[in-house]
Amino acid sequence: MTSNLRIDGSRLWATIHETAQFGPGQAGGVNRLTLSPADGQVRDWFRRACEVAGLTVSTDDLGTQYALRRGRDASAKPVAFGSHLDTQPTGGRFDGILGVLAGLEVMRTLDEAGIETEAPLLLINWTNEEGSRFAPAMMASAVYAGDYTTDEILARRDAAGVTVAEALQAIGSVGEERVGARAFGAFVELHIEQGPILEAEETAIGVVEGGQGIAWFDGSITGFESHAGTTPMTRRRDALLGFSEFCLAAERIALAHGPSAVATIGEATIAAPSRNVVPGGVAFTLDLRDPRSETLDAIESELRGSLDEIAGGRKLTSEFKRIWRKEPVPFDSAIVGAVARATEALGLTSRRMISGAGHDACNVAMKAPTSMIFVPCRDGVSHNESEWASEGDCTAGANVLLQTVMALANRATDETGAAG
Amino acid sequence: MTSNLRIDGSRLWATIHETAQFGPGQAGGVNRLTLSPADGQVRDWFRRACEVAGLTVSTDDLGTQYALRRGRDASAKPVAFGSHLDTQPTGGRFDGILGVLAGLEVMRTLDEAGIETEAPLLLINWTNEEGSRFAPAMMASAVYAGDYTTDEILARRDAAGVTVAEALQAIGSVGEERVGARAFGAFVELHIEQGPILEAEETAIGVVEGGQGIAWFDGSITGFESHAGTTPMTRRRDALLGFSEFCLAAERIALAHGPSAVATIGEATIAAPSRNVVPGGVAFTLDLRDPRSETLDAIESELRGSLDEIAGGRKLTSEFKRIWRKEPVPFDSAIVGAVARATEALGLTSRRMISGAGHDACNVAMKAPTSMIFVPCRDGVSHNESEWASEGDCTAGANVLLQTVMALANRATDETGAAG
Repeated sequence: MTSNLRIDGSRLWATIHETAQFGPGQAGGVNRLTLSPADGQVRDWFRRACEVAGLTVSTDDLGTQYALRRGRDASAKPVAFGSHLDTQPTGGRFDGILGVLAGLEVMRTLDEAGIETEAPLLLINWTNEEGSRFAPAMMASAVYAGDYTTDEILARRDAAGVTVAEALQAIGSVGEERVGARAFGAFVELHIEQGPILEAEETAIGVVEGGQGIAWFDGSITGFESHAGTTPMTRRRDALLGFSEFCLAAERIALAHGPSAVATIGEATIAAPSRNVVPGGVAFTLDLRDPRSETLDAIESELRGSLDEIAGGRKLTSEFKRIWRKEPVPFDSAIVGAVARATEALGLTSRRMISGAGHDACNVAMKAPTSMIFVPCRDGVSHNESEWASEGDCTAGANVLLQTVMALANRATDETGAAG
Repeated sequence: MTSNLRIDGSRLWATIHETAQFGPGQAGGVNRLTLSPADGQVRDWFRRACEVAGLTVSTDDLGTQYALRRGRDASAKPVAFGSHLDTQPTGGRFDGILGVLAGLEVMRTLDEAGIETEAPLLLINWTNEEGSRFAPAMMASAVYAGDYTTDEILARRDAAGVTVAEALQAIGSVGEERVGARAFGAFVELHIEQGPILEAEETAIGVVEGGQGIAWFDGSITGFESHAGTTPMTRRRDALLGFSEFCLAAERIALAHGPSAVATIGEATIAAPSRNVVPGGVAFTLDLRDPRSETLDAIESELRGSLDEIAGGRKLTSEFKRIWRKEPVPFDSAIVGAVARATEALGLTSRRMISGAGHDACNVAMKAPTSMIFVPCRDGVSHNESEWASEGDCTAGANVLLQTVMALANRATDETGAAG
């Protein structure tokens, strides 16, 4: 019974820490910016490890690595899975990495058990998910989704002026396959949650139903600079006080649309700040997310109304401009269902959830039936060298991945699998 | 009847604009940093103008200029008045300047009318009121008050490393008199309000009863940085939201102690600000002023209580440290009364008020009976090239100064003057 098959958790755990040697951080994490020499090292290591596991590795023209495991039906679209091996400059050992190395562990497990699936399996290491060296983030999967052309991406430059094309050549990662040339029967990405929910609820697995929609805004509030000693409280046009009201209004509005809606003011700057001057201006950003497009609309409208009201009440003026919006990404119900069934069959606790962060899977979902598997991370912390996930949680997530991809690859022939 | 005597408003107005040639600003204001070559030029001009008006000019070891007009009683302590001729780098034509030049106009008026007062009159141009080149502000009057020694001040350096002593020598302003060697019978300073109250209430004269007490604080609020997309609103420890609550609490607390109390948060910085990160820390300053010492105490205590409560409610930590406090300065009731009577006799509208800003008079009040006369300024704006006061308001203020100093100088012999 393939449903009894389990990955080797201690081997997966050792592999995770083995690859942390490529681009070691200063505080136990990983510094492996995309297409850096360290990224080149981990890519070489990954290619060899895949070949040892009997996989055929190819690379596309943006450096994305594909490791193929043949199926009985060579004409079937492969069931794809994976994530990314690049990190933030002060990143952790798990973000992205877990999804790729758990995929490798799945391949190793199937190889050792001598199990052949109906459809082929395809393990992917997407180039530049993080976006901290080259923009945009989720670069290769964005080309896969059709949001950019390969040529547009190859011309992007890092802060030192190096293009993506030059960086790919420098580490010998230019392949011949075109991004997007390969169709997937499904895509499944295992990832740490990067949030606190699973840990707080002591739940092993997040069955991910989609990615949130995101809207970014730039705002400003303008009042009148005046002397902190000579301007009575009742005669002030204090931009910071208007901004403070708006921060609290944004929190109230997001809570009223809860539990999924989140609104964050992450940057705020007083114009010409001085200890004894009433602030005359504040510039700020606002990040708004929700899984429902109409809720994003409603919240944006309420935020605008609230800002107008606050500014009017304090004789301030305001601007609030939407600079970017990404629509919510619903994942495919059949793939979500496959993840849920695999989790249940393994006897693991789970909850349905929405990804608050962007992932390669959110791009792939534009072209192929997709879902994600989340596992808890300590304190919800990621993009930080202290990022951590337990061996048990990593093992559980990899077993869900194993059972999910086996079920998806055998869908047509396996009587326990439901069609999508 | 000396009570019918009036200054020449158009001559005063012309003199104000004549001296704006020394250190002209770029936008119609004045750039005359203390002890700069431009300050040297206006000092030379001032000395000559005083000598033409029959005054004896001397200079102290910090460059402060004293122009003496003899009285009938050479042994009486002089009635002193004046202000400062230095400006901010982008200062206006009135701040400080009006008080000195109105004093000159008073001397000219008395000279032309051939009037001799009982006590001598002493017009003063204090060195470095502004403090924008050398700290502390109100430098020479602070030595007069005994807060610093002359030697301490002479050693102070500007941003280029030049000492006060060197700067004094460079413009030939080193005198032989010691600051503080001369006792005053009274001190009266005419100044623009630097606030919006008189203009808003259409009142000609502010009769100033004292200077506010000031307390400065440095504070910080610490939460936990987390991902803007993956951290539910209910699980955040957002330092900016706690800070926003505190800003509004500080406003409420100051208003509750109104109308004099003012609390200003003029600087605030998010630690490691990022568009998609929940703020983990905010550092800020708070400037608190009130004319009553016990109110400063009460507000500080309420601010601390409020900050603790806000931090507790949001699982944040906070610090709030007082870094400076200057006690309130009550002016002398006899001198305040003399200003009020002069204003009334001139038929001018007036209101009692407290100075929100620091002035040389606040220092002098530590050693001599003191008051101030405020006149309105446009939009309450000062320390700005657009600073403006009307010719009519300047004339009214100078007439109040004239009548006040005449009454004070003739106190002992004038049946209409009340003793202090």
